[in-house]
Amino acid sequence: MGVLIVGSIALDTVETPYGTLKNGLGGSATYGSVAASFFSPARIVGVVGSDFPECYLSVLEKRKIDLLGLQKITKGRTFKWSGSYDEKDLNSAITRNTELNVFADFHPSLPEEYKNSRFVFLGNIHPSLQIEVLDQLNKPKFVMVDSMNLWINTTRHDLIKVIKRVDLVLLNETEAKMLCDTNNLMTAARKVLALGPKFIIIKKGEHGAMLVSNNEVFIVPAFPIEKVVDPTGAGDSFAGALIGYMASKDKADSSVLRQSLAVGSVIASFNVEDFSLNKMLNLKKSQIKSRLKLLAKLTSFNAPEF
Amino acid sequence: MGVLIVGSIALDTVETPYGTLKNGLGGSATYGSVAASFFSPARIVGVVGSDFPECYLSVLEKRKIDLLGLQKITKGRTFKWSGSYDEKDLNSAITRNTELNVFADFHPSLPEEYKNSRFVFLGNIHPSLQIEVLDQLNKPKFVMVDSMNLWINTTRHDLIKVIKRVDLVLLNETEAKMLCDTNNLMTAARKVLALGPKFIIIKKGEHGAMLVSNNEVFIVPAFPIEKVVDPTGAGDSFAGALIGYMASKDKADSSVLRQSLAVGSVIASFNVEDFSLNKMLNLKKSQIKSRLKLLAKLTSFNAPEF
Repeated sequence: MGVLIVGSIALDTVETPYGTLKNGLGGSATYGSVAASFFSPARIVGVVGSDFPECYLSVLEKRKIDLLGLQKITKGRTFKWSGSYDEKDLNSAITRNTELNVFADFHPSLPEEYKNSRFVFLGNIHPSLQIEVLDQLNKPKFVMVDSMNLWINTTRHDLIKVIKRVDLVLLNETEAKMLCDTNNLMTAARKVLALGPKFIIIKKGEHGAMLVSNNEVFIVPAFPIEKVVDPTGAGDSFAGALIGYMASKDKADSSVLRQSLAVGSVIASFNVEDFSLNKMLNLKKSQIKSRLKLLAKLTSFNAPEF
Repeated sequence: MGVLIVGSIALDTVETPYGTLKNGLGGSATYGSVAASFFSPARIVGVVGSDFPECYLSVLEKRKIDLLGLQKITKGRTFKWSGSYDEKDLNSAITRNTELNVFADFHPSLPEEYKNSRFVFLGNIHPSLQIEVLDQLNKPKFVMVDSMNLWINTTRHDLIKVIKRVDLVLLNETEAKMLCDTNNLMTAARKVLALGPKFIIIKKGEHGAMLVSNNEVFIVPAFPIEKVVDPTGAGDSFAGALIGYMASKDKADSSVLRQSLAVGSVIASFNVEDFSLNKMLNLKKSQIKSRLKLLAKLTSFNAPEF
């Protein structure tokens, strides 16, 4: 069946301690779908302008991503984001500029064959647009939603509406604390679960991620990387790989979710090793498998006896 | 054989979001030895003044801690530390005041029977005093050293000398980055290992701890606690439990080290649930075992297949 990923498709200008990339391929739907495509066929819903380079479309096509839901606005320009990372904190980007462009009037429209998607990732876009997608879906098996501080601050009401309708909420540490008005991640997790979702994942950047449900907690470390070239898209490639792996199993139980967090952590660790999607686009299955083995070794210990 | 723990014995005044404790029992040797005592007999070397309450000595005696190496200065006052924790960051204390008192002229002197100690934890004290201890030891099997930003900034030369002579270096994230002039923890770890120690553990507060050697990495999460009452002594109880567990196995191989990090993480998680050592002093073996099982479940996942 594959996965449906809704989100931004962007031209990113990024400055990191390792250099600068101008108008690189970016956006949550882009990172998410490429990451998902290692495990399941992926389809995206998003929008680009007439300035969107053909070669970037080829990148997505090469990964066999279904672009039927991609709107092209001939009289508009593609969404642009520019930001930088402080050498001292690669976990959070400093946004320099955002040009909404074609995103300003965007309304997601699902092609007929997308409406039966069973696994859906609603990337970080305005919560009202996420609701529009939910309204078009026909009984999805599993929906995961991402968001950001902007929506928590400006459209909290809509965001809560979305949260109540999905299976899994994905937030980073700062967002979770902000949304739930607490400094304790477990308390934040419980408050989100009380709204209805079965799961919450709190992303902790270089410290990994934590999955919480009403009856369990699972913690996956980030795979330690010595040379973090560009953290952009780490969260989205984590999410994309996660939903892609789940879809490949057509299951949303605890065991598969744990595996999918591990898979997400590994894909994200590759993604940060180069600018834009460069590392992911040259990634082999054998590399993913070998890093997954290392990740498992990284956390395993025999039961202590005393 | 038991473990030798050298460090501070303090009267702590601590303010946290949950209240204030005045002149509570504290210090690295105190937290370390009580934590170690769950797994191995512990002996301490330290100093107190005439104001040190008898009941605090009883606390240590009740845990069967050997106090032969405890110096009592009748004309002096005990080392005092006072600090607070910001509600927004329970990972690091804000020091309000430090009174060195008897610690100002302290020189560790090991009783004859301590000199053959096989497992040693050099708690955070001036590196030159740590060297004095090393000089008195007779071929220890395993020495672990802790330090702090103050010594990194003021007596780096002595600290490096200590690091070159021990088996394991324990630092928190900020200290590791500061010592090695890098913002990448793996790079910091490699730089410390290049000085000679076989292992480094980087403590990451609520994000757990990372063990690095020349051929492996192990990451243990912090056990998630919803009500962190007082983080004081978390690092020292982690270290004490770790060295105590290792001593109980009389081994310092990778498998035992991994187990001991898990044990340390669990003991530290109990310690932060109440002020001073209150939680640890009422802790039962069954509670430790049950939380260890939860910790193992917290990180386990089946190998993903795709």
